[in-house]
Amino acid sequence: VGVAGDGAEGGGLFDGVLARGEVRAAVSDRAWLQAMLDVEAGLARACAAVGLVPAEQAEAVGAACRAELYDVAAIGVEAAASGNPVVPLVAALRRAVGEPAGSSAHLGATSQDVLDTAAVLIARRALGPLLADLRAAADAAAALAQAHRDTLMVGRTLLQPALPITFGLKAAGWMAGLDAAIARLVAVRDTGLAVQYGGAAGTLAALGGNGPAVLAALAADLDLPVPALPWHTDRTRIGELAGALGVAAGAAGKVARDVILLAQAEVGEVSDGGGDRGGSSTLPHKRNPVAAISALAAAMAAPGLVSTLLTAMVGEHERAAGAWHAEWRPLTDLLRTTGSAAAWLRDCLAHLRVHPDAMRSTVDAIGPDLVAERLAGALAPTLGKAEANAAVRRAAQAGSYAELAATIGAAELAALLDPAGYLGSAGEFVDRALHAHRLSVKESG
Amino acid sequence: VGVAGDGAEGGGLFDGVLARGEVRAAVSDRAWLQAMLDVEAGLARACAAVGLVPAEQAEAVGAACRAELYDVAAIGVEAAASGNPVVPLVAALRRAVGEPAGSSAHLGATSQDVLDTAAVLIARRALGPLLADLRAAADAAAALAQAHRDTLMVGRTLLQPALPITFGLKAAGWMAGLDAAIARLVAVRDTGLAVQYGGAAGTLAALGGNGPAVLAALAADLDLPVPALPWHTDRTRIGELAGALGVAAGAAGKVARDVILLAQAEVGEVSDGGGDRGGSSTLPHKRNPVAAISALAAAMAAPGLVSTLLTAMVGEHERAAGAWHAEWRPLTDLLRTTGSAAAWLRDCLAHLRVHPDAMRSTVDAIGPDLVAERLAGALAPTLGKAEANAAVRRAAQAGSYAELAATIGAAELAALLDPAGYLGSAGEFVDRALHAHRLSVKESG
Amino acid sequence: VGVAGDGAEGGGLFDGVLARGEVRAAVSDRAWLQAMLDVEAGLARACAAVGLVPAEQAEAVGAACRAELYDVAAIGVEAAASGNPVVPLVAALRRAVGEPAGSSAHLGATSQDVLDTAAVLIARRALGPLLADLRAAADAAAALAQAHRDTLMVGRTLLQPALPITFGLKAAGWMAGLDAAIARLVAVRDTGLAVQYGGAAGTLAALGGNGPAVLAALAADLDLPVPALPWHTDRTRIGELAGALGVAAGAAGKVARDVILLAQAEVGEVSDGGGDRGGSSTLPHKRNPVAAISALAAAMAAPGLVSTLLTAMVGEHERAAGAWHAEWRPLTDLLRTTGSAAAWLRDCLAHLRVHPDAMRSTVDAIGPDLVAERLAGALAPTLGKAEANAAVRRAAQAGSYAELAATIGAAELAALLDPAGYLGSAGEFVDRALHAHRLSVKESG
Amino acid sequence: VGVAGDGAEGGGLFDGVLARGEVRAAVSDRAWLQAMLDVEAGLARACAAVGLVPAEQAEAVGAACRAELYDVAAIGVEAAASGNPVVPLVAALRRAVGEPAGSSAHLGATSQDVLDTAAVLIARRALGPLLADLRAAADAAAALAQAHRDTLMVGRTLLQPALPITFGLKAAGWMAGLDAAIARLVAVRDTGLAVQYGGAAGTLAALGGNGPAVLAALAADLDLPVPALPWHTDRTRIGELAGALGVAAGAAGKVARDVILLAQAEVGEVSDGGGDRGGSSTLPHKRNPVAAISALAAAMAAPGLVSTLLTAMVGEHERAAGAWHAEWRPLTDLLRTTGSAAAWLRDCLAHLRVHPDAMRSTVDAIGPDLVAERLAGALAPTLGKAEANAAVRRAAQAGSYAELAATIGAAELAALLDPAGYLGSAGEFVDRALHAHRLSVKESG
Repeated sequence: VGVAGDGAEGGGLFDGVLARGEVRAAVSDRAWLQAMLDVEAGLARACAAVGLVPAEQAEAVGAACRAELYDVAAIGVEAAASGNPVVPLVAALRRAVGEPAGSSAHLGATSQDVLDTAAVLIARRALGPLLADLRAAADAAAALAQAHRDTLMVGRTLLQPALPITFGLKAAGWMAGLDAAIARLVAVRDTGLAVQYGGAAGTLAALGGNGPAVLAALAADLDLPVPALPWHTDRTRIGELAGALGVAAGAAGKVARDVILLAQAEVGEVSDGGGDRGGSSTLPHKRNPVAAISALAAAMAAPGLVSTLLTAMVGEHERAAGAWHAEWRPLTDLLRTTGSAAAWLRDCLAHLRVHPDAMRSTVDAIGPDLVAERLAGALAPTLGKAEANAAVRRAAQAGSYAELAATIGAAELAALLDPAGYLGSAGEFVDRALHAHRLSVKESG
Repeated sequence: VGVAGDGAEGGGLFDGVLARGEVRAAVSDRAWLQAMLDVEAGLARACAAVGLVPAEQAEAVGAACRAELYDVAAIGVEAAASGNPVVPLVAALRRAVGEPAGSSAHLGATSQDVLDTAAVLIARRALGPLLADLRAAADAAAALAQAHRDTLMVGRTLLQPALPITFGLKAAGWMAGLDAAIARLVAVRDTGLAVQYGGAAGTLAALGGNGPAVLAALAADLDLPVPALPWHTDRTRIGELAGALGVAAGAAGKVARDVILLAQAEVGEVSDGGGDRGGSSTLPHKRNPVAAISALAAAMAAPGLVSTLLTAMVGEHERAAGAWHAEWRPLTDLLRTTGSAAAWLRDCLAHLRVHPDAMRSTVDAIGPDLVAERLAGALAPTLGKAEANAAVRRAAQAGSYAELAATIGAAELAALLDPAGYLGSAGEFVDRALHAHRLSVKESG
Repeated sequence: VGVAGDGAEGGGLFDGVLARGEVRAAVSDRAWLQAMLDVEAGLARACAAVGLVPAEQAEAVGAACRAELYDVAAIGVEAAASGNPVVPLVAALRRAVGEPAGSSAHLGATSQDVLDTAAVLIARRALGPLLADLRAAADAAAALAQAHRDTLMVGRTLLQPALPITFGLKAAGWMAGLDAAIARLVAVRDTGLAVQYGGAAGTLAALGGNGPAVLAALAADLDLPVPALPWHTDRTRIGELAGALGVAAGAAGKVARDVILLAQAEVGEVSDGGGDRGGSSTLPHKRNPVAAISALAAAMAAPGLVSTLLTAMVGEHERAAGAWHAEWRPLTDLLRTTGSAAAWLRDCLAHLRVHPDAMRSTVDAIGPDLVAERLAGALAPTLGKAEANAAVRRAAQAGSYAELAATIGAAELAALLDPAGYLGSAGEFVDRALHAHRLSVKESG
Repeated sequence: VGVAGDGAEGGGLFDGVLARGEVRAAVSDRAWLQAMLDVEAGLARACAAVGLVPAEQAEAVGAACRAELYDVAAIGVEAAASGNPVVPLVAALRRAVGEPAGSSAHLGATSQDVLDTAAVLIARRALGPLLADLRAAADAAAALAQAHRDTLMVGRTLLQPALPITFGLKAAGWMAGLDAAIARLVAVRDTGLAVQYGGAAGTLAALGGNGPAVLAALAADLDLPVPALPWHTDRTRIGELAGALGVAAGAAGKVARDVILLAQAEVGEVSDGGGDRGGSSTLPHKRNPVAAISALAAAMAAPGLVSTLLTAMVGEHERAAGAWHAEWRPLTDLLRTTGSAAAWLRDCLAHLRVHPDAMRSTVDAIGPDLVAERLAGALAPTLGKAEANAAVRRAAQAGSYAELAATIGAAELAALLDPAGYLGSAGEFVDRALHAHRLSVKESG
């Protein structure tokens, strides 16, 4: 009934803006609870597979591993006594299962095993929609790069006009950043997100010599890689995930910022195409690029969260006294905010309205100055580099390049002044980048 | 009913550990919604006070400004279209009020006015319990400093024994850090948390010449300071709040880390006193200092959030395209996590069990080495500084200081070897710090 | 001979861009060395004042406390053995002074006392030029606010035009942020930067009962506040300094970003006035706002450094094993980068060229849409709020507001369409802000 | 000769502690200057290879590309006018080369091309010693894991004793973290650090159609990968490098913290083996683990720097107005501080003194409680899980487990009480981890 919050099914007050997409649900408190239960169910089955537990007891445990059977808030409250929610969850699970099967739950495990492996499941599940959104955004950028391979616009460095480029080249740069972020996230997902299971101190002592067998069976059950040894003390997997998400957020934020700047009224080279979004009842001329703004807002949250997760890598001995607990929320928040950036960016790019005429107008408004470098280059063989630069500078100050015709002829001057003729390898770069994109889609698909 | 999440009334899965205390509720989504409505109600009354709106219309608006009348999740979803939740909230409020009074709501205001002033209200309300918890923690530290003014223990630098200190001195250091954090938060609350109201671009143009009058009336209604000019573009108030919270989290985290270290089994100089908390069903010797661990975990989240808020200060023109939105969640999270650190620390210190015998045992286990500095000082007038140090070093290596009696006499040697006699001004420092604490309580109370 | 680096007198490769102003020298390695020596000299004099050391020995120590007598690099190398540079510095100082006076140096002190108090001196000294630059920047903003109190321009929210404002109002917002940052830094400097002196474990045991007297004398000698107790374990002072610097960087970065955006070729409402700076030999039309860009670049480094310093607050017992050492460089870097932001911003604002005609042109290019809110407000009494908004929206879509004359009359319509008449309280807000600025200058001067 | 600072050859005041190892020199200002000159030399040769420049001119340019010919400080100062040091460097290079060859330098390039590619060279060169130190540290951890595969010690969770483990297992966990960090850094080095060359706006327009050919030749000359398109706008490469360094610092910091904790006087299970390091003249019992402390201090600087670099990914258009410049120092600092952490950790682990007797004493001091879990497990088949736990808890409270003999027999009880028999799969995990280490060495070698 509208009671809300991040973790709630219903969504929170800021979630429409800051937690767009399916990642929000994938990292909700209920999703965390289910992930923990999935670990318990998988562990019971793994123990059965190895013969430590009767199959029917494992089945009974598995049947009780449905989040809707438990009260998130109550488990949250009870967690305070032990310092983590696994302790009350296991107690509740055992009560739900009853004896003797209840005793077959959580075999050999410590709370951290369940939480760490649940974190891995949460990350993998969140990466599904997150990667889908990033890929769709990259594909949209690719489509823009293709469609506008030769659409002339001004290139801007330090927010000042520099040289002519194409909008295709700009979009190809966006795509390349997104592709790199995707490739890295896929690699982290496929190789870094291993099962974590070591018991109270990483030896799996409670299983006698059966530890590695159960570990392997659990990994197989959950379809996760098997680590060489329990990684409870080694947080590089969390750190690498954090870094990859931070890079993805940065790549998305870059695109969003460019879109926002191009959508300025004074520039007007793109506009948000998402229906009526971004209008204002009292300011009818207002057309805010809401998707790009929201993507950027979400991306801005990432670096601080990454730094928290990297700081938390430095834990004490076999389980950190604080640093471990300090991972739970930043990891959740980082997945969600990166997911929101990806979802908004997908929306933004899929609906982006590109205005080639406005791009051309900007180019024309700057005029011949935009190709001054080219003119200087053409004059240099005749005048020498220094004098060529000086001649062009004089012409720029005078506001007319006509005098240069004396040196290079009127026809060549006219040709040189065409900015569309000074695009260098822009087209070729776009083609190369699109080729790389297609390869990347194949590989990371 | 178990629907959960940060913002939810029920509490989330990690809230028992990471969101202890009353701050959680004070920064929930519902609390945010209420704060926005309080701004709208206050604004309607302020407009009435200035004569822009009939009093009965203001009253009608005020009557509809109760959070329970609105659907947080629905407003959250609708917020996506405009990029902030104020737009759908105002629409819902006007529908609830009906015409003509509905038109009297939100007069002259822009979404940012409502959200910024709501943020100020949220911060002020959260600082209530947060400061109460910090003060109680500081008072508990003061009580420890008083009670253990002369309790001998070893001082540890770089996690190695250095010289004798008292537990009172250590507790006084904790108290001093907490007191400084409290004083700063009080100052930020009382002077920094001003009303924000400027209309679409900071001119209050929609009010004609009545802007300053309504601004003053609104501030009076909400009991907030009046700024010289709208601060929508100037985020120093948010930055200062963030900095002060970061410092408070750091001060709390420091105490928590010391407690965790003192509670190590090998040290055993303090232990958690919170009932059965921290036990383990399978490890009966386990007694985890849950309160201190949880306080530290909460404190660790702060620095990254502070950095995000400081980064978000750099916004564009009259409203930032992303950086503004990027403040909402980190500010909420920073208040909550600092509040949780404070609440756990209060619990930790209020119930801390101090073990003076164990402290004494540690001192005795180190033995005379602990006062080697003192012996060298006593020998220096006779032997010269260099030789005195050398003699002491030889004695330390030999494991006996008996030979030094030849130089300074057996009686003086015995006296010098008493670590309780080498506490310098520890007691006086404790007294001074307690005096400062009492003054600080008076001032910031 | 061009050997360079941050700490070097000569300046480093990136210092012209990233370490402008006098703060660089004030936080150089040589400045740190001198600050440590100043602490040693002050301590010797303080011990003499209390009668623990002969005055002539204190004088001899003081005479040797000149940085040019020591080899920074050699001390840096030797520091590795003990983990801090004070140990080799004190040894070198004692060698330089010779006996017996050498033994009178560093009395009762531990390395941390010297480094912490040196950090305080470094901060205070760096804050001199840093505050001078920030104040000059604030004054320049004030002059702009005064001069352009009524200069019409467009207010931009979410990087889209919103309503008319004045450039004076924008500049007043810049000024207000800078003033707040200055006030806070002054407060931290005057009350937070206390002497730190406690001996090996904070008891000043080596001084017998003379600790507090020497502490007071040392504080007097260095003109620093006396703390209630040594603050080696309580890093709130460092954290508050960090927070205040982070806010100052944020306030400066905000102004810089606005300037960069206004200087876009497509906007052209301000330009960098620093002589030939920012030109390009091959792109004659290029005119990069170098000062604003460099100010923003410097400001961007601050949040990460603040988070490191806040993280380092959580140290162990009487001296942190790592966290203490982790403060030295971020503190230095934070002072320098904030100083650079301030110095560049001062330069930027002092030479800023404002182009009121361009501002007016932007306003005119948007046309009547810019005052649509006003028109809707004027129509509302007649048409009702909803219909008024709708009528304006129709007019905006039609591209002509002429039809509205039917409702409100041609003369009033013409008056309403003048954007200069829809500035609300902009002028009054500027006046109020300037008044506050003058008070703030008086107070913080 | 004592002129100091980070970038200086001589080393700075804090460099012995905070900038150990060869990375410092590899990222010095002089190294940056040389890297920029290497790019210029490589570019001249590449242009010659493609036929755009006479070979002898390229040679002349190359001959002048030696850092010692230029004045770092002067270039740093002049950089302020253009906003980057490449502009004055190219001018100085051309002066040094003279005409006509001077004009053949910097062909088609913009400042960012030179700085970005220099950054790549700096990173690659710094990663040499950095990886060597990390590998040596991992090898030292591997040697410890091998040697202490069966050395019994207590496993500690939340800084409380949990179950028996082996020191080998702990060391294997350290090794695994370091190996993961190494593998990632190698991947970033080999695939991410591509040449960056696109000219003023990424089109290489000044080269006509020769851009891709020169790009390929430049990459070949510098032995760097060729990107699909210039990456001036796509900072994922920098972000990934930052993330990988942050993870490496975290992995190193984790080991350092464990060593510091094990070296506590009250624990004494390891001690620093680096000669006389860490002693104190006045506290003869003091033996600070300087290497581990310094490694941790260096590691703590990383997360904040990573967050700055991730934030700087969000730049504007074809060259960021501030965000680009904001990368230079954090990238340098991050390489140096991670390098220092690696160098100190290598030193720490290579000389670590392990005290198996002390480890055993800790185990014995805890006594049978340490294997309570095992006893409960053994009793469970007879008593049921709940009663087994209760019986063990009663025994633990009573301080004697003798009564349990009634259930399981005295002989089995005695066997069960041997902590060395409750190590689960510790040995097997060590073997697996060592196997993975050997593979990893082969791959990343």
